[in-house]
Amino acid sequence: MPRVSQDQLEARRHEILGAARGCFARYGYEGATVRRLEEATGLSRGAIFHHFRDKDSLFLAVAEDDAAAMVETVARNGLVQVMRDLLERAGGSGDTAGWLGSQLEVSRRLRTDPEFAKRWAERSAAIASATRDRLQRQRDAGVLRDDVPVDVLTQFLELAYDGLVLHLATGRPAGELSRVLDVVEGAVRRS
Amino acid sequence: MPRVSQDQLEARRHEILGAARGCFARYGYEGATVRRLEEATGLSRGAIFHHFRDKDSLFLAVAEDDAAAMVETVARNGLVQVMRDLLERAGGSGDTAGWLGSQLEVSRRLRTDPEFAKRWAERSAAIASATRDRLQRQRDAGVLRDDVPVDVLTQFLELAYDGLVLHLATGRPAGELSRVLDVVEGAVRRS
Repeated sequence: MPRVSQDQLEARRHEILGAARGCFARYGYEGATVRRLEEATGLSRGAIFHHFRDKDSLFLAVAEDDAAAMVETVARNGLVQVMRDLLERAGGSGDTAGWLGSQLEVSRRLRTDPEFAKRWAERSAAIASATRDRLQRQRDAGVLRDDVPVDVLTQFLELAYDGLVLHLATGRPAGELSRVLDVVEGAVRRS
Repeated sequence: MPRVSQDQLEARRHEILGAARGCFARYGYEGATVRRLEEATGLSRGAIFHHFRDKDSLFLAVAEDDAAAMVETVARNGLVQVMRDLLERAGGSGDTAGWLGSQLEVSRRLRTDPEFAKRWAERSAAIASATRDRLQRQRDAGVLRDDVPVDVLTQFLELAYDGLVLHLATGRPAGELSRVLDVVEGAVRRS
């Protein structure tokens, strides 16, 4: 095998992640077979798994990137805005259906695979922490209700987020969800 | 095969349902194999599938009973109380973990199997309708907020219910969920 620089390794890793993200989003976790991952990346399984130990590691690396992006959006615009964006994207075409499907696959794995659950927990914790920090800043600014602890409001928003993911992932119609998110947002604000 | 009366058929059907419920609750949908259903019911697969076309039909019949029970609780005590009961049961031992797992299996099937989704939709509709009726009675009694349509509040409670199921089904700790449910309840009440 020819020697490659650290930069080349990083670039290749980045390429694989991008292609794999599209493949997971399109086919879901189970549907993104190794063969499809080969097609999406244009690489052999040997080359792919030289960079990522296995399909799980590849999926978790994609999820880590997603979580980092979500943490940024939460810090900037809050978890309610993440929900509004998700609702809007679910109405369009694109790869959101596949992404939602992947989230359900993750849920199944969380139940049955403690090792996976441990690796996943770090991503959830980062998102919870960004949500809590933003709510604390809003409380300091006096726009948040102050009769309920910030931790409880954080978990309330996470409950709504989980509910939205499950609703959309099961392909149910959006109905009045946009106005439901107004109720969610109103419930954490100072009235 | 000996002739049996309609009553005997019904009684047998009822027995199978009860045993199958325990089996699905304990092992989840996938884990409740035909062999385990045989053990749970004490009947051969031939006898079981004489009464229910296939495992799907058996599962849907159990789900139909569950939905009917849930409709009664919702009508009497509301969907928030259903959530409080679920939270309490999830903290204990018992078969709630398996039941929650089954709900996730259902979610997966809803995504991938339009025929199953159609049969399931009737159950969801009955629960939504009971929730809406109860909220309407509360609005008539003047205890519900009146600045948001009842349909939106119904979907808000369903979002919270879905979020709770996903949270608990993935085995995450209950955290402050009991106080989160206070926030959910407060959000539909007149302030």
